[in-house]
Amino acid sequence: MTGIARFGSFYAGGRRLVVEGRPTRTISFTDTASMTYDPNGLYHIEQAYVQYFVPEQPNGGLPVVFLHGGGMTGAMWEQTPDGRAGWAQHFVKAGFTVNVVDNVERGRAGWTPFEDVWPGPPIVRNTQEAWGLFRIGAAECFPQRQPFAGQRFPVDCLDELAMGAVPRWLSNNPAAIQAFGAVLDRVGPCAVVSHSHGGYIALQAASTRPDIVRAMVLLEPSGFLSGDALRAMDGTEFLFVYGDNLDATPLWCDLMREAAAFRHELERAGARVDWWEMARRGVRGNSHLLMMDDNSDAIAGDIATWLLRAAKAD
Amino acid sequence: MTGIARFGSFYAGGRRLVVEGRPTRTISFTDTASMTYDPNGLYHIEQAYVQYFVPEQPNGGLPVVFLHGGGMTGAMWEQTPDGRAGWAQHFVKAGFTVNVVDNVERGRAGWTPFEDVWPGPPIVRNTQEAWGLFRIGAAECFPQRQPFAGQRFPVDCLDELAMGAVPRWLSNNPAAIQAFGAVLDRVGPCAVVSHSHGGYIALQAASTRPDIVRAMVLLEPSGFLSGDALRAMDGTEFLFVYGDNLDATPLWCDLMREAAAFRHELERAGARVDWWEMARRGVRGNSHLLMMDDNSDAIAGDIATWLLRAAKAD
Repeated sequence: MTGIARFGSFYAGGRRLVVEGRPTRTISFTDTASMTYDPNGLYHIEQAYVQYFVPEQPNGGLPVVFLHGGGMTGAMWEQTPDGRAGWAQHFVKAGFTVNVVDNVERGRAGWTPFEDVWPGPPIVRNTQEAWGLFRIGAAECFPQRQPFAGQRFPVDCLDELAMGAVPRWLSNNPAAIQAFGAVLDRVGPCAVVSHSHGGYIALQAASTRPDIVRAMVLLEPSGFLSGDALRAMDGTEFLFVYGDNLDATPLWCDLMREAAAFRHELERAGARVDWWEMARRGVRGNSHLLMMDDNSDAIAGDIATWLLRAAKAD
Repeated sequence: MTGIARFGSFYAGGRRLVVEGRPTRTISFTDTASMTYDPNGLYHIEQAYVQYFVPEQPNGGLPVVFLHGGGMTGAMWEQTPDGRAGWAQHFVKAGFTVNVVDNVERGRAGWTPFEDVWPGPPIVRNTQEAWGLFRIGAAECFPQRQPFAGQRFPVDCLDELAMGAVPRWLSNNPAAIQAFGAVLDRVGPCAVVSHSHGGYIALQAASTRPDIVRAMVLLEPSGFLSGDALRAMDGTEFLFVYGDNLDATPLWCDLMREAAAFRHELERAGARVDWWEMARRGVRGNSHLLMMDDNSDAIAGDIATWLLRAAKAD
């Protein structure tokens, strides 16, 4: 394990926005500082924020870009709800350069409150939706907080999970793909580790720059590619990773069928695909949030080993 | 200069929120994943997010807590608009443990879109407002981007500054003070470095826990204390830091008058106060954004020296 030589951040992508024709009003920031607020003017929106960490002793692997799932931020990679270190730390300590993204509309990327720019209202995930959708337990068992048998997510820390939830706009996929593409262009040849809805965004952005994305780790992705976009990825190495209880909801049954078809098409196109269903590998009880479960370090270690084998820096 | 031993993050403060009585609707995340969205349920709101960095070689100084100004996030401390390293890096490399806050309503702390919880609409700062309010140049010189003579802010990088702007609610001061107080309770004895509106929030939170906040660096604060809250801070060391062109707007003329009165009352209460107006120290051209100006490293170095003299760890 290595120390961290340096860290920093940058913004990538997005566009200028000029707001016009809105009324001004008088506002007060504190008891003693009031002023006229004029919303009209120049903004910059739809950028991604990227924080990077460079190890003291690089391991020769490609830089890793972490992309969160929907309604979450890059913070999901840097601590678990029960206070252990997250995958960002694990990977930089293992010698990878790590890039953690807050994509469009969330976290330090900011968001725009002008409803004619992003048609609203946004949605935000509550704890009972996370409980079912993230396969912590059956929906009807939320009131008693009775999880699936052998659940590895830290069920006592649902408040900490809820603190990481941020609003999202359903119309923002194109902006998110654009900004994540700008991140990839800036980072250069890399491996992408994405979660859930982030897998969809990452696949879309990578399919127009397959020379940059040498390896993709898709943690329970919720959307896929088809046609030319899929075939463009024939030179990329793929790893799919899934937790347990995948038959617990109709949504996950559908997504697993679609994922299996996507895998088949990728292999037909010539891509190399590895596929880890943790339960079939003898590890039971993982939720949708593999990076927060009690065996998160072990999974990170296995993925790091896979990444070092799959793709080396030039 | 030292390397970084580790980093991580946590949430502090806030409260549970139960939303009830709202209609459900069908939504689609991607082409292939649709579901019923039910906004009713349990949330956690009004927490602060804190990212911390621990140096390999501690310098014996107190941990430093950085609090952004209004409409900004903790990202303001970790890079300058022209791509240089920020104060967070400077301080951890100098051997301080650094805590960078995203307070309530912004960044990785998240926000709530329910308008009956935070009465809206929020406001967001545009580039021309930043130009005048942050004293980059006279308001009427924005169209030509003609800054004040000798301006140290990187004027070619206004887009990068705009990318860091986030919406804010004017009603959220109490929640911000509560959450920042929870951050201080978690960090323990510390020094606070705050900017602008963050100075107001930091003073309010510190005044109810003066045993924890041993030193306060107030970079152009926009609000102050009075009465018992002020007198509670008699054992804290204060440093005020100001840029140039303070007479350029009525707002800053007012704030400087109030700051001078506050300084006088602090000294009368027995607090030790240092007061740096950069221009009176022979350094011209600093804006409101001292941590982004071209002499940001030099100012950071002076503040680090002051902090090591002012207050040591127990």
